[in-house]
Amino acid sequence: MALHFLIEDAAGSGPGDVVRLTGAEAHHAAAVRRVRVGESVTVGDGRGAWLTGTIAAASPKEVAVEIDSRTDTQAASPRTVLVQALAKGDRDELAVQAATELGVDAIIPWQAARSVSRWDAKAEKGVARWRTIVREAAKQAHRAWIPAVEGVVRTADIAALAQTSLVLVLEPSASERLTTVADAGAVADRDVVLVVGPEGGITAEELSTLAEAGARPVRLGETVLRTSTAGAAALSVLSAAHGRW
Amino acid sequence: MALHFLIEDAAGSGPGDVVRLTGAEAHHAAAVRRVRVGESVTVGDGRGAWLTGTIAAASPKEVAVEIDSRTDTQAASPRTVLVQALAKGDRDELAVQAATELGVDAIIPWQAARSVSRWDAKAEKGVARWRTIVREAAKQAHRAWIPAVEGVVRTADIAALAQTSLVLVLEPSASERLTTVADAGAVADRDVVLVVGPEGGITAEELSTLAEAGARPVRLGETVLRTSTAGAAALSVLSAAHGRW
Repeated sequence: MALHFLIEDAAGSGPGDVVRLTGAEAHHAAAVRRVRVGESVTVGDGRGAWLTGTIAAASPKEVAVEIDSRTDTQAASPRTVLVQALAKGDRDELAVQAATELGVDAIIPWQAARSVSRWDAKAEKGVARWRTIVREAAKQAHRAWIPAVEGVVRTADIAALAQTSLVLVLEPSASERLTTVADAGAVADRDVVLVVGPEGGITAEELSTLAEAGARPVRLGETVLRTSTAGAAALSVLSAAHGRW
Repeated sequence: MALHFLIEDAAGSGPGDVVRLTGAEAHHAAAVRRVRVGESVTVGDGRGAWLTGTIAAASPKEVAVEIDSRTDTQAASPRTVLVQALAKGDRDELAVQAATELGVDAIIPWQAARSVSRWDAKAEKGVARWRTIVREAAKQAHRAWIPAVEGVVRTADIAALAQTSLVLVLEPSASERLTTVADAGAVADRDVVLVVGPEGGITAEELSTLAEAGARPVRLGETVLRTSTAGAAALSVLSAAHGRW
């Protein structure tokens, strides 16, 4: 598989143009990955443009790619959105990374009642960190679109999403199964919003706020999944059921 | 959801018996989780026995559970087996942990050509470490069976499994999709063995050794998955397709 670069500046480029990698990414490509003049690579802009090209120059300060071809891919519609509760350790970050690899379209951080990690005054920093993780994961996964990371929300904001989207709350004690919902065509033309709680679980109060707004609690198997595993498993089931895979 | 304990000694216990938690696990239950006399809990032995009980005594040195009921669950047959390549960082351990939560039946460590981590002389220590991770993950996930962790294998050993099992090699460049294989009933009555390569990927030589023996390279979506994500995603697709979820 060809080496892949993410160059946001490449947005307007097409065949014959030259796009450049600089800074730490040029150093990594030239000094660590040892990219060579003449080598075929792919370049994305993270907004749907997918370019193939050939290395025209490679030094640790700058790598230049001459573009051979360009394809543009549409953003997914309807979208699959992950609402991920803030969680202790690096469990929320692992969840965000895996979801990006698996094709999620947008990610919303959730300050849940049992979230041990609290962003409060540092919400901007938290969102910025998740955006960095998502950008790196999208590059590693060779995705044409970088998922959006939205601002941190509270439970009422998630409940409001149920007016226009199919909101599915992953909850091990739910009686309904995700596989049934995914197969039954409940999705129609709406965004699917997957809600994943923190390590300590979703509270009864949060569950009832969400359910009253029309969100549906669903479970996967019979086991209890960590917050870093639940979203990835649910996204995999949905991608398979909806023919994305 | 009731607090759950894993007590291997509980294997022969039934209603009316008392089983005991000691050492670090008793301390955790009594001092950290603050379990109380009279509280309902569940107890597994990791070999299929599933007990419900009531806390009869709780101190940081010993927690006693009086058993109320016992259910025995059969081990899965055919099994789903994960062959996980050794990988750098903690990526192989994260993979093993997630696979256990998601219901894998057995795990086999693979010393692949591009495995940066090499167990060589320390294979016993490596297997012991994976067994500890799997035991903890099975307990957290409330699984009745702890997946077996087998000895480390080389590529030829995996090829040999294709004589009796359906061996699926996760490879982003494969033309066949896992979703197609999972739906087409290719599984029949055989164990399914999922092979996940290291961070650097499976070599062409390894792929051809496996394919010549009858293993089938398959991919999930269009993206490139980390070794810690690939097995979890594939297990999720298989569990949904085969009605386990």
